[in-house]
Amino acid sequence: MHIESYSLLTDLYQLTMSYGYWKSGMAKQTAVFHLFFRKTPFKGNYAIAAGLQPVIEFLENFHFAESDLAYLRTLTGNDEKPLFEEAFLKFLGELKLDATIHAIPEGTLVFAHEPLLRIEANLILCQLLETPLLNIFNFQTLIATKSSRICRAAQGETVLEFGLRRAQGINGGLAASRAAYIGGCHATSNVLAGKLYGIPVKGTHAHSWVMSFGDELTAFSRYAAAMPNNCVFLVDTYDTLQGVKNALEVGKSLREKGFEMAGIRLDSGDLATLSIEARKLLDEAGFSGAAIVASNDLDEYEMEKLKESGAKINVWGIGTKLVTSYDQAALGGVYKLSAIQNEHKQWEYRVKLSEQIIKISNPGILQVKRFWKEDKMIGDMIFSETLSSNPQKMILESDVIWENQGFLAENLLTLIFDKGKKVYNIPSLSESRQNTYRNLAAFAHLRQEKYAVGLAEDLYELKKSLIQKWKK
Amino acid sequence: MHIESYSLLTDLYQLTMSYGYWKSGMAKQTAVFHLFFRKTPFKGNYAIAAGLQPVIEFLENFHFAESDLAYLRTLTGNDEKPLFEEAFLKFLGELKLDATIHAIPEGTLVFAHEPLLRIEANLILCQLLETPLLNIFNFQTLIATKSSRICRAAQGETVLEFGLRRAQGINGGLAASRAAYIGGCHATSNVLAGKLYGIPVKGTHAHSWVMSFGDELTAFSRYAAAMPNNCVFLVDTYDTLQGVKNALEVGKSLREKGFEMAGIRLDSGDLATLSIEARKLLDEAGFSGAAIVASNDLDEYEMEKLKESGAKINVWGIGTKLVTSYDQAALGGVYKLSAIQNEHKQWEYRVKLSEQIIKISNPGILQVKRFWKEDKMIGDMIFSETLSSNPQKMILESDVIWENQGFLAENLLTLIFDKGKKVYNIPSLSESRQNTYRNLAAFAHLRQEKYAVGLAEDLYELKKSLIQKWKK
Repeated sequence: MHIESYSLLTDLYQLTMSYGYWKSGMAKQTAVFHLFFRKTPFKGNYAIAAGLQPVIEFLENFHFAESDLAYLRTLTGNDEKPLFEEAFLKFLGELKLDATIHAIPEGTLVFAHEPLLRIEANLILCQLLETPLLNIFNFQTLIATKSSRICRAAQGETVLEFGLRRAQGINGGLAASRAAYIGGCHATSNVLAGKLYGIPVKGTHAHSWVMSFGDELTAFSRYAAAMPNNCVFLVDTYDTLQGVKNALEVGKSLREKGFEMAGIRLDSGDLATLSIEARKLLDEAGFSGAAIVASNDLDEYEMEKLKESGAKINVWGIGTKLVTSYDQAALGGVYKLSAIQNEHKQWEYRVKLSEQIIKISNPGILQVKRFWKEDKMIGDMIFSETLSSNPQKMILESDVIWENQGFLAENLLTLIFDKGKKVYNIPSLSESRQNTYRNLAAFAHLRQEKYAVGLAEDLYELKKSLIQKWKK
Repeated sequence: MHIESYSLLTDLYQLTMSYGYWKSGMAKQTAVFHLFFRKTPFKGNYAIAAGLQPVIEFLENFHFAESDLAYLRTLTGNDEKPLFEEAFLKFLGELKLDATIHAIPEGTLVFAHEPLLRIEANLILCQLLETPLLNIFNFQTLIATKSSRICRAAQGETVLEFGLRRAQGINGGLAASRAAYIGGCHATSNVLAGKLYGIPVKGTHAHSWVMSFGDELTAFSRYAAAMPNNCVFLVDTYDTLQGVKNALEVGKSLREKGFEMAGIRLDSGDLATLSIEARKLLDEAGFSGAAIVASNDLDEYEMEKLKESGAKINVWGIGTKLVTSYDQAALGGVYKLSAIQNEHKQWEYRVKLSEQIIKISNPGILQVKRFWKEDKMIGDMIFSETLSSNPQKMILESDVIWENQGFLAENLLTLIFDKGKKVYNIPSLSESRQNTYRNLAAFAHLRQEKYAVGLAEDLYELKKSLIQKWKK
């Protein structure tokens, strides 16, 4: 289905609130919202930021089409009268992306409470964009993180993503292929993702190929005759080790013709034992260069078990558990108001209170400073640019005070749109993927430990005073 | 991003196999594949078929665009030479949807091993369509089923889907809203889904609205002034019961102006206790018609617990756990070859063997017969149309023989495309949703029990003989 405009990709309450702000004369009131998550996914100690490029594309195309307004005109309240008056629809039709937006580049390691994105704009624009920004960042960050965990479990071996058939919808599949690549995967089976995003694509044949012929040996031979430069034989349709022998027979005749069998694939059974036995057969026959590809509901936990069992697997095919992030199907990213300008154009800070302390949001106009000791990440400080531009002390979650001892620092939030004008050069997907690898290397010394993230001292004090003020 | 063609939305191995069939002179060989799942999701005893309409739209637009072929031309094998020869790309460019496709209408109850779709076409088309058909059916059926379970837990009360911000990508969200509606939800917060699919949309305001004003009472009053015909006040930004009192104050002044407060919303805390206390406050103040909407990571299990605790909730807002199908993020639908024509145009049957009996697929050209006793579904029989058109005996999974005792029967698989021509009138989404409700009523007598699904006796014998033949 062709979709003319995605600007209605938002929750209705964003539009009813926008109408409320407009009716209350607050349409031009400037606010600041931040997008962040409160807990790193998968009980891990980091996440990989992803989603910025599709967010930028969404924002660049943001405008209400005539058909959007026509649809909104049909909505009614509980008295069957229109929800929105005509002048508001006209206002929406003329609404422009008059926003200043900072975000953390894709492939960057990020942590709980750090803003992945900060938007300064009129209240209405801030509200309308909440839902699509969360939708894109939540899912892309979730999958990039899952992918990086799977790639770490592969210990440098190749990881192929092939989850399209079980993905959550068409773009669920496309978006997953994209984020999985940023997170470190080497290739995808999803051809459209290859075309659209330039991700390498991989694939050979399925069980149905083998079943279409009378027997497996014929099936392998016919495949090799058609595509001698792309032979990974799926050997488990009938009997796996017999399958390896059939693959070897075809591999030998390929070699005589000047081609090399790329490998075999195991898709069922005891992958550890089968891969060890298959490796032996391949090596004995002089095919030590042929890869063993394995698949069958794998994820980082299964991969670690297989590694421990001494499995001889060179290439990991990961589907469902990666593209749907099966053990945690959503990232709980949120988007909170943290400052609003009063009629004198002064900032008033806001926190969202909660009985759970972790749910209390940070006030201010935030930035994240990352400290480096040579090539190692050693801590992140969340600070408000309106309080101090270069704070050196922070309070960690444990209430411990951390002080910068001459470490180099960089600010993570990068200017993307300056008053509606895009000023950011989007890196290629492959550059973002390299960013992931560089970041993970800088984080490798902290594989299990908690990374130091805190609030700048002045921000901590501001937050405390706001909480106390509201509690009264 | 505008996507010119979705025809590459498939796994690469579908294309390499297609190339293999084409090179082997098998491009015109006719085959039959079926799409089915092996286990009903959520440990439940049924699923709701969904996805047919988007599948039809995909199929109607299926053709390889010039840009698709240009992309395929760039792919290379392990010798860096092109994967596909030019004549094959020309063949793909001319490929038409020359297929006869049957499917089960959306909103129909379906069970393990029953084909949701059957395709008869040349091998190449069958392969190329496998991935997109699975992608769409798997996710839509999963979410429609989850939605129906949630609606059953609501026992007739209103269920709103509002998961867009946590959905798996943009179309993950759109597709989820669509399937959730088929499964029984009453409305969505997703405005674009409302525009595209005609689903009713609902929404009022968020915590950020309350936080934008100095205090809650002002926030509610300003909202009521702007939109008096759509007032559901979110009362838990600061103190929930104080919030209810503020809502009541505004509700009274609304009433004086001739409007009625629609309700309040609880989004945190102990929903059972808070809803009971809020109901009391509302009733005592003469607002017994005001609904209590509740949300906060709910699903059917939480809803049942709340019902048991006597919670006074009238409207259920369900997000993440519905749209991502959090407790089971994928349906394991598969697509298997079951018959292929030999050079004499005779059907040869195929099964996919496996050490797990449940994984052995059914041979034949299948249809599903549903037996009815008055308005109750009492059993389904999977049979092959090439063996007998009206079998009366089936073998259940337990090996028990079931015989039709004069029950009325209907065939579930409906002709959708006849040799590439669409012959099916797509019902409206709301008709498909009514189909779900009708089906569930006919199934209500079997809420916990296993439903009888079996293979026609002749199909059972054919399958047994094929397994024995292959095992030799």
